[in-house]
Parts: sequence; C-alpha cells; structure tokens
Amino acid sequence: MPLDGFYSVIPAGGVGSRLWPLSRADAPKFLHDLTGSGQTLLKDTWDRLAPISGEQRVMVVTGRAHRAAVEAQLPALADTNIVLESEPRDSTAAIGLAAAILERREPGVVIGSFAADHVISGDALFRSAVADAVAAAHAGYIATIGITPTEPAVGFGYIECGGTLEVEGAERVEAVSNFVEKPDLDTARRYLEGGDHLWNAGMFIAKASTLLEELARTKPELHAGLVELAEAWDDPVTRGPAVDRIWPTLEKIAIDYSVAEPAAAAGRLAVIRGHFQWDDVGDFASLAKLNTAGRSGELAILGDNARVLADASSGIVVSRANRVISLIGVHDIVVVDTPDALLVTTSEHAQRVKAVVDALRLGGSSDVL
Amino acid sequence: MPLDGFYSVIPAGGVGSRLWPLSRADAPKFLHDLTGSGQTLLKDTWDRLAPISGEQRVMVVTGRAHRAAVEAQLPALADTNIVLESEPRDSTAAIGLAAAILERREPGVVIGSFAADHVISGDALFRSAVADAVAAAHAGYIATIGITPTEPAVGFGYIECGGTLEVEGAERVEAVSNFVEKPDLDTARRYLEGGDHLWNAGMFIAKASTLLEELARTKPELHAGLVELAEAWDDPVTRGPAVDRIWPTLEKIAIDYSVAEPAAAAGRLAVIRGHFQWDDVGDFASLAKLNTAGRSGELAILGDNARVLADASSGIVVSRANRVISLIGVHDIVVVDTPDALLVTTSEHAQRVKAVVDALRLGGSSDVL
Repeated sequence: MPLDGFYSVIPAGGVGSRLWPLSRADAPKFLHDLTGSGQTLLKDTWDRLAPISGEQRVMVVTGRAHRAAVEAQLPALADTNIVLESEPRDSTAAIGLAAAILERREPGVVIGSFAADHVISGDALFRSAVADAVAAAHAGYIATIGITPTEPAVGFGYIECGGTLEVEGAERVEAVSNFVEKPDLDTARRYLEGGDHLWNAGMFIAKASTLLEELARTKPELHAGLVELAEAWDDPVTRGPAVDRIWPTLEKIAIDYSVAEPAAAAGRLAVIRGHFQWDDVGDFASLAKLNTAGRSGELAILGDNARVLADASSGIVVSRANRVISLIGVHDIVVVDTPDALLVTTSEHAQRVKAVVDALRLGGSSDVL
Repeated sequence: MPLDGFYSVIPAGGVGSRLWPLSRADAPKFLHDLTGSGQTLLKDTWDRLAPISGEQRVMVVTGRAHRAAVEAQLPALADTNIVLESEPRDSTAAIGLAAAILERREPGVVIGSFAADHVISGDALFRSAVADAVAAAHAGYIATIGITPTEPAVGFGYIECGGTLEVEGAERVEAVSNFVEKPDLDTARRYLEGGDHLWNAGMFIAKASTLLEELARTKPELHAGLVELAEAWDDPVTRGPAVDRIWPTLEKIAIDYSVAEPAAAAGRLAVIRGHFQWDDVGDFASLAKLNTAGRSGELAILGDNARVLADASSGIVVSRANRVISLIGVHDIVVVDTPDALLVTTSEHAQRVKAVVDALRLGGSSDVL
C-alpha cells in the first residue's frame, strides 16, 4: 500500500565524473547497471519508490538530453511527471521546481527526494524509514534519512543527531544538530563508536510547502523564480517561454546548503536512522568494493560480454568494448574499457578520476567526456 | 663498399608472443616500429645489412602469410631472395635452407644470419664486428657476434670466451668455450666483472658449406632434407612439390642446439666482441626500458596518434586503437591497447605475457592471437 499523500521525486542529474569513462555526459551514472542486477540504477530507484508513493506519484527531474533514455527505462512514468531541465542548475532548482509544481497540483503534498544513482538494499527497512520521515514531514519538519554507519567511512558527509523528537506515527525521529563534511579517519572512528553520527545520503522528505517556505527565507529570488516557473508549468502555452526566461537565471546551489543546513540551524530538520544498506558508488573504489562484497584480493568484472583473462590480479574491470582484456599481476587495479576511452588506475587513486576529466575537458578532449 | 663474397640472411619468423597483443600471428614483432624510428624492425635490419652485403645479396626467410608485408617493407628485396616457409619449422630449417640455396647458387659464399626483430645502434661498430666474423668464416670457423655486456642482465644467454684465435684479416677473434643459459643475478654480476662473457645475440656468420657440414654431422636427416629442397628450389616446376613433400618433415630445432653448441664443443665456433648497442626487445619490460632510455619513473608512449593523459604514472603505453588512454597513479605499468585486445600488467610480470597467450589459445580466443 502506498503512503498517503506522498510523492517521490527522483532528481536524475549528475554525470558521475568520478566514474569516467563509464559515466559520460550522454550516459550518466544513473543509466548504468553498476551492481550486476541487470537493470540501471534509475530503474532500481523507481522499483524501490513506486510501491511507496504509487506509480502515478513518482516525478523524475532530468536533462532534456536524457528524456528518451529515462522514458525507455521507466515506461510507467506519467507524461506529466517528467520535468526536463534545459541545463543543469544544481539540486535546489531541480527539487525546488518539483516541489513548486507538486504543491500547486496538490496543496499539502509531502515529497521525498531520492538520488537516481545510489545503491540500496533492504527495501522493507527503507520503506519503514521513509514512513517515519513522512510522519515527521506531516509534523512540519524537513526530514532526512541518515544511514547508520557500518565502518569509519571517510568518503561521506555525516549528520549529527541531536536528541529525540516526539512525532506522531513515527517510531524514532531525532533532531539534527549539525552537518559535518567528510571527516578524517580518526574522527570517522569516533563517530562510529559514538553512535550519534549518520551518513548523509542526501534524502530529503518534507511537505512541499515547508521546503518552499524554507527556501523563501534563505534564497528568496530563487524561490520566486521557481514558483513563477511552476505556475506556468502545466500549461503547454506558457511553460516554454517561462523555462527559457527563468531557468537560466536560477542560482546554482545544492539543496544541502540552501535548505538542509539552514533548517538544521533553525531546529526544523529531523533525521531518521536508516538501517538499510546504502552506497552512493562515488568512485571506482566503491564500485570495486560493492562488486566484490568488500573481499580484498578479488577481481570484480562488470560487463555483459566481458572477456577477461586475469592472472594474480585484483580490483575491478569494467568492460564496455567487447575486447579481450588481460591482466597480469596487478592489484587493486581499476580498468575501465570503453570504445573510445580507457582508464587505468588503482582504488587508491579513484578520487582523482574527476581531475582527469577536468584535464581532458581543458585539453580539448570533450569528445570522450 | 659491401664485403666480398658475403650474403645476409634475415630469418623473419617469430611472432614475439611476449609482446602480445601488439605482436600477433598476422603482425609479428618484426613488422612493428618499436623504437619510434618511424619504420619497422625488419626495415631497420635491412638498412643495417644492405650496405654490408649489397642490396642484391640479402635473403629473407619468412612465412607465406607475411610475403606481402615483407615485400612492402623491402621494395629492393630481389624476387629470388624471399624464401617462404609453408609453416614455421624453427631456425635450423630456416637458416639451413638459406645456406643450402645460396651454396648451390654461389659455392663458397659466406652467409651471416641476423634476426629481423632486434634493435641495434652503432652501425659502424656493427659492420666492423661483421667484417671480423666474415674473416673468421673464411678461415673455416662458424662465427658468432657476442654483445659486450653493459649490465648484469639475467634475460639473455651468455657466450663464454675461451682464448684468442689467430685469424687473418680480423682484429680480434676468440674461441667459444661454452654457451650459458640465462643466469641468476649473482652469476650475471660475476660475468660482467670477469669480462669473458658476452650476450648471445643469435648472430651466426659462416661459409654456407661449413654450416651445412656441421649440420650433416649433427642432424644428417635434416641436412639431407634441406639439400634436397635446395636442389629443387630454383626451378619453379620442382620447388612446389619438394616443399610440400619435404618441409613438413623437417625437424624443428633451434640452430643454437643443432649447430652452434656442437661446433663450440668441437672447437669450430669463434666469437667476435660486438661493442654496438643491442637489444632483443624480448618483452614489454625491455621495450619500456628501451623507450625511456632506461630512466625509471618515466612513461614511454608508443603510437603515432596516441592520446595519453597520465598523472603520476610510469612504465609504457602502447597505443594502437586511437582511444584516449588515461593513467592515474600506476607505476612500472604496461598498457597495450589494440582494437580487439587490451593488456594491463607491470614490467615485473612482463615475462608472463607468453603464458597468457598460451591460456588464450587453449581457451578458444585464437581470434585475438
């Protein structure tokens, strides 16, 4: 049974530069199968959310270039529920526009925004966390779901819990006292032991009106632009001109900064502890870990028709070019083989892939980005 | 001025499995430019030998499949000087057939056999070594040119010098007391200090008749087959049937074992110290070394249109597929990128490439060999 009055929003935006050359401008991370599940991360996300909000109550915000791919992935997505961006303007604009459109269509609606390209397992635990978050949203909070850490990860931001909140219909809701950027290992170890820090998974659940009110307070111009755009949205005559006029003027800012952190400071942010498994698959090191179930010394192979011959090697091979790939004596290696670009690095250097993408762009190699 | 009565023979046979996937059955090592010289090793070899024997006095022994490529590389090669093998039967058959054909055409001729796929620099030093070897050949010896070691190499066989021989017209000729297989590092260090051991470069210079006499003594059946084949060779009516009948029956054995070692044991092998630079480019570790001039920490890039973006990486990249190749934080790496096969290994494991080729063959992946 879907949750009453709840709408899912899937911002499907980021390219996933750290997963280049697998992820590309025209084939971003959410359009890949990174788990061997046989379907894309976007479809996985849909399959997780549709039962919670109902199939007719899932909105996807994506770039115009991805329209066909998204519709092919999600045949049940309603025509009115695909919001196309003429250019990327970060998560506040994407989620804020969805909130403004949905609030107009259905005043009082609670929306939950969930990235299109994260990996989650434990659907029942996920649903129960969302249900608590929706209860908190009905109580007027902006709610986020933080992930209970299973190791002292240094690659994620953390949410610091600040005491229990009484919320009707929810099992456990806590206040957020602070957001913390990626910590060092010692700090991460302390967080893990202390038990009051959760991984920030970028999931936000709130009444659309609450979100918009918060935004009106912190970013009044951006808020005004989004509301104006939403008013024009559902009329085919007015939408195009409004998009052309307003969208390019909107401030680019992550919703973490425009809404979540100010709301936390004002005591309006609530957090629910998620006990499901979650990974944002931020780079090839995470991808390798995910696909070897964390066993070091193993070699993960991604690719339907991979022809890999490996001798005394570990790490990950992503095969997208139907070539024979032979590895000999290379450990924690990352090999990503695509028709026009090849990456060879190690897990240790996985975060530096983004710098290479930037260098390729500056060096005039945008054809492979 | 060419040397009197001297004929060059270039056996162009081996695939160079340790250089897979660059070297292939249909594109063996000698058809590659491995030095960035802009031409193939075969053409380099021709350019070195043609001035010594004369352009009309260079014979190439190669596989039927390589005829067109060899002729394209060597437009000055005389039609009668390309000897095509219907199948590979090792170096005794290849060089022995050349010797038998040339002895028949020009009794008393001195032949010198030089691999098609070695890298040599110092043409004047090379020529002077060949001149001494030809003098030794006229004096009845089978002569070899050993390379004066510049480091304690463990990847080569060694020739042990056994005292000076008096040879008219030669500066310095020595007896060979022994052949030694690839030594361990301590032994190689002793050889380097002692000064009596030379690298075995597989160069043999002798009167064709001397070679054939030695072979008649050690391998009478093989000798008989080669002589019979040579008698039929220069008549287009008799050649084909003789090849079909005799060639497949010839024993496969390296000339080192059939001729050189027995001749050394019998005191008929002479050695000339070569002071030129030589490398057999036996694997990707040597190729990397050759192309970085031995400087560790550097990255060698082979490929006319290579698009390589490397960050904190060293080793070698061979680019044959026109793709962008990005390396991050990989050291002593070997990346060989071809349209249908990719190899990733390290210099340390370069010798194991041959085992991978064997595994691919057994595994039914001969399409990429």
